[in-house]
This record gives sequence, C-alpha cells and structure tokens, in this order.
Amino acid sequence: MSNALPVLAEVRRGPIVESWHHGVIVICDPDGQIISSYGDAELRTSTRSTIKPIQALPLVTSGAADHYQLTPRELAVACASHEGEPIHTETAARMLRRVGLDESALRCGPQAPYSVETARQLERDGLPFNQLHNNCSGKHAGMLVTAVHRGLDIEDYVAPSHPVQREIMKMLARLGDLEETLPTAIDGCSAPTFAVPLRSLAVAAARLANACSDQGAQVVLEAGVAAAARRLVNAMTAHPEMVGGTKGRFDTDLMRAARGKLFAKVGAEAVYSVGVLPSERFPRGLGLSFKMEDGSYRGLAPTVVETLRQIGVLDEAEANELITYYRPVIENRRGMLVGEVRAIFDLRFNQP
Amino acid sequence: MSNALPVLAEVRRGPIVESWHHGVIVICDPDGQIISSYGDAELRTSTRSTIKPIQALPLVTSGAADHYQLTPRELAVACASHEGEPIHTETAARMLRRVGLDESALRCGPQAPYSVETARQLERDGLPFNQLHNNCSGKHAGMLVTAVHRGLDIEDYVAPSHPVQREIMKMLARLGDLEETLPTAIDGCSAPTFAVPLRSLAVAAARLANACSDQGAQVVLEAGVAAAARRLVNAMTAHPEMVGGTKGRFDTDLMRAARGKLFAKVGAEAVYSVGVLPSERFPRGLGLSFKMEDGSYRGLAPTVVETLRQIGVLDEAEANELITYYRPVIENRRGMLVGEVRAIFDLRFNQP
Repeated sequence: MSNALPVLAEVRRGPIVESWHHGVIVICDPDGQIISSYGDAELRTSTRSTIKPIQALPLVTSGAADHYQLTPRELAVACASHEGEPIHTETAARMLRRVGLDESALRCGPQAPYSVETARQLERDGLPFNQLHNNCSGKHAGMLVTAVHRGLDIEDYVAPSHPVQREIMKMLARLGDLEETLPTAIDGCSAPTFAVPLRSLAVAAARLANACSDQGAQVVLEAGVAAAARRLVNAMTAHPEMVGGTKGRFDTDLMRAARGKLFAKVGAEAVYSVGVLPSERFPRGLGLSFKMEDGSYRGLAPTVVETLRQIGVLDEAEANELITYYRPVIENRRGMLVGEVRAIFDLRFNQP
Repeated sequence: MSNALPVLAEVRRGPIVESWHHGVIVICDPDGQIISSYGDAELRTSTRSTIKPIQALPLVTSGAADHYQLTPRELAVACASHEGEPIHTETAARMLRRVGLDESALRCGPQAPYSVETARQLERDGLPFNQLHNNCSGKHAGMLVTAVHRGLDIEDYVAPSHPVQREIMKMLARLGDLEETLPTAIDGCSAPTFAVPLRSLAVAAARLANACSDQGAQVVLEAGVAAAARRLVNAMTAHPEMVGGTKGRFDTDLMRAARGKLFAKVGAEAVYSVGVLPSERFPRGLGLSFKMEDGSYRGLAPTVVETLRQIGVLDEAEANELITYYRPVIENRRGMLVGEVRAIFDLRFNQP
C-alpha cells in the first residue's frame, strides 16, 4: 500500500540526507479532470480540516447565514483551523450568541489555544482554556447556527446521522464526484471526517474556486451552492487571519502572499487543499490537493509553495515572501545553520 | 532514492488509514553478517545520538574513566540523551568538576530540559536553563574529561579535526566495518555526526553487546575496546534512568522492561540502535538498527517493540509492559478513543 509514492521533500544536514517525506500532489480542473498528478491521485486518506469550507456550505445554503446576517469574518472563522486568539474566540462566541447559545453548546472539546501568546495571557489571568479556543470552534459554531436555523436537534449535532452532518457528506460527495456514503471516522473535534481520494479533494477545491468566476463565465456548480461557495471563498481570502491566525500560520501567510489569487486550507495529518481562483492564466480556476504520506508537516509547506511556483500561480517574489515556510533551515542549539528542508520534485506541468 | 522502503507502521482512525511510516530494520551478528533485514540495509543516514555509547568509548579506552574514578552512573549519562532532570545535570556537573571545569566549558549549547517538571521548577525558581540541561551534556562532559586527561585542547573539542572526535570516527568505522573517513555534518549539540549505512549501526551494536560475553566466550573486539564497551553497556543497563529519564522515556522503559537483556539508544530523526546481550537464545549477542524514513518518532517505538517481540527478545508480558509505546492510541479533544498507531510488518525471522 502506497509503497510507490514519490519523495516530495528531503531533510539535509550538511552533506547528509537524513530523512525523506513522500506524498501526493493532484491538480484538477472544475470538470473533474486531473491536469497533473505526482504520486497516486486515487490514494484515499481522511479529509480532516481541509474540507472546512465544504463543511460551512450548509450554513449558507440553508439560509442561516442570511437570516442571522453573518459577516465575512464570521464565515471565515467557520472555515478556520484558528489559533484561538481573541479575534477567533470572540467571533465564534458572537455567532453562538446570535442563536441564543454559548460555549457550553459546543461539542468540539476544550483545547489549549495554538497561539502561545494567548495561552500565556490565559495563564497570567488565571483563566482555563475552553471549547472556544479549540481550533475548530468556528466550524462548530457554524454547524450549531445551521442546526438552530433549521429547527434541528443541537445536543448531538456532531453525530454522523445528524441532518447537518449528512448534508455535509452529500455536499462533499457532490463536489468530489463520489458515492454518497463515505467511510467515516471521528475527527479530533468529534465531528465526522471522511475518507476520499486526493483527486476528489482537488476537484472539490477547483469547484469552490470556479464558483468565483465573473458573471457570464461557465460555473460548474448549481447556482445556490455556487453562490454559497463564492461567499465563503471570498470571506477566506478577505480575512486570512481568521482562517489561521495573526502570525506564523502558513494558510494565512500563503493567502496573504497570493493576494486573493487562491484560498488554502490545511488538515491534520498533513493533508492540504488549495483553490486557485479564475484568472487570465487559469480562466476557470484550478484545485490542488496534497498529502504527506507520513502525516507530518515538515515537508508540506515546501511542497505546496514549490508546486504553486512551478505551475505559475506564485511568482518568485511571492514564493520568497514565504521563504521561512518554503525553505526552512535547521539550526542547532548554538544557533548554527546545520541543515535544511527542501522540496525536490519536478511536476513537468504543462498549462492546460 | 529510498522509494522502495516498506511500510513499518500505519496510523488508523476508525476504518480509515490516515498515514503511513516507512523505514528499515536491520539485525546483525557481531561478525558483521546481516541475519535479517526489512528494507534497504545499506541506506545511509546520520547516526545522531544512537552512537553515544561509541562516542563514550574513548573516555574509557584513554584511561580517563579509571583515572578520574568515574562511576557507572557517570558513564551512563555520558551515553545519554537525557531529560535534563537534576539527576542528570548534577551528574554531568560532577564529571566536569573532576577535571576542574564547569558548565561554561561545554559547547553543546543551552536547551530547555525535556523534563516538563524540571522546566517548571526552573521557572518557579526564576532560573534560566543552561548547557547542563542540554540532553547531550553528559556526552560533552565525557568528551571534555577525555580531552583533559589526554592533555588536549578543550576550547574546540567538538571540531571534527579534534583528536577526540577523530578517535570517535575511527571507533565507529572499526565497529561498523566502514572506511575511516565518513561523511560528516554538525549535530544539534554541535558535535560531529556521521553518515553510515544502517547495517553498520546494527553491526556496531552487536559488537558492543558481544563484548558483554561471559569469560571464555568468543569476543570480536580487541580486549581494550571490549572492556570499555562492556563497562559502558553495563552502566546503561544498570542505570537506564540516566540514559533517558525517570519517567516517560522509551529508551529507559525498554531497558527496564528487558531487565538487562539489551541496551537501547534513540537518535534524532528516528534512528535507533539496540544491542541484545549474549544469552542462551542468542549466545554471541545481536545488534539491531532502525530508521523511520520520515524522521518522525510516531511509528518508531511500535516498530522496535514489535521487532523485539517477533525475534523473541521480548515476550508478550514484556511487550505489554510497554503497551503505551507499543500500541499508542489516539484520543480526540473530548477524550474519545478515535485511532491507533500499529506496526504492520512480518519479519519472518528464523533464529540463526
């Protein structure tokens, strides 16, 4: 199984290659065709947080986002794996308040905020972290708002049989050209996660991006879903700090460097999705998915940036803005530069 | 390169396999023959901290250990990647005092102690961590004691050209059946690290173990090196808490569970060595080396324990004492059991 996945990144220490990271890269168009792939595009792995924009679709298609007048920042945090900074926790709390709920309604479980500064501040203030600090609290707030709006049970909204979760699986199947019943497991935040081929993740990202086409251009998704996708993608690209954090987060900094050209979303176990919005170069948009086979993040950002550079989505200057992610260096305990992580593949990508 | 390495461990979440860890397992006898291997035994990777017992050999062969009357606990900490607990820092400091030096003579750099309790205690006491807390401080203290005893420069004892480092490379080459000049890089602690095939790491471990043979049995190494090896291995197995820490460290707990049957040493980037001491089952001793290709530790302990179980070094009861390392479970943020890491190989090992 997966013996044949190629090396995407290597870890060097002086003249020695110490470790290797294998994986898969898939690039699809919104029709579902693979434009380029490196490794097995049919490899099935769990979606984890890469599908948060898809998990947020019912929040908009149900009419809940309109009814409760959710702001773009609220929609962005619904698509986030956030740092648990005050901008994130307060936004998620506000979403809950709009439907008369509070932190106790969440079922994501408490998590220390990723943000070291926020964690230290909580400690200084003698406050415990809570479910709002969980990096998925925005997603869960969005699920709860949807459930309340639709008059559904809110006690066990994370159960795979709950109508909100069934709707999400249906959306994912629709966007990824998949059977409607997907292998399901329990995510770190207790919501369902699904096993899908990487091709499907790339196609889904392509279709979300394609929904941002100018008026008149050919949009693949039906109007309602396309409008919801456009609204969520626009929220993510307008507020990248809500999707990751104010600093030190690859998703956020990639979207900042790309200046509206793409949306990006990481998932646990080093799965990744990028949607390239329609442009002169890629008139209908593109979708990319990535999976590091070992589930570690070390080779992931170098792989993502190198891919986007090779296919011409990021130019050299933009890639260089991301240099600490793109070409991480290894320092030892005396601060000597002793090694580096480097993407080492050549996609031989021919523009469609 | 290394495309063909097999999967050693997989990460499951419910019915979904999320990630895979590839790697190499090599088992050698003290004559240098491969008894069994899984993956490419000739894969070259850096030795990192797996060779600390070899890096400590000159401390004994030079006569320094005798001259300064080093205790087994001091010899064990010279072979350690320790937690920076008081038992480790005080022992390393005492070694330095015996040659009239203190913490400032170290060139390993300061490192926060791995031990969370020690780190918290330092914070409570308003004390900074220093070079003694570096997990390699025992090794460095041993190098300094050797240098002082031999009347060598102590300013730059970590330079690859320093006689102590040249002696270590020579020892490694001798124990691993290698050319005397090895590709060299700088380790996290600023000492040299070397690129060697995994076969050599296994052979070297077998020879260190073989040196512990009873009187009269055939010992491969020349008498002086064998006596030094025996003294270091006995120190490690008698004081496993000095090699790792008082709790939560795989090296230590593996040696405790094995009750003197083996010595074990981890290295950064998930390289690992085990020496199985001569016994009725393996009269001349065995050496094992492991490398997880991606450099992550998640699949390493399950692989090491499963290997030792399959070849009959650990019985079921001993493997079960190590269950938290052997079969780690994945819990989510609400404490639900959602996945597991599992070694999945079959060595088909036939006892020599």
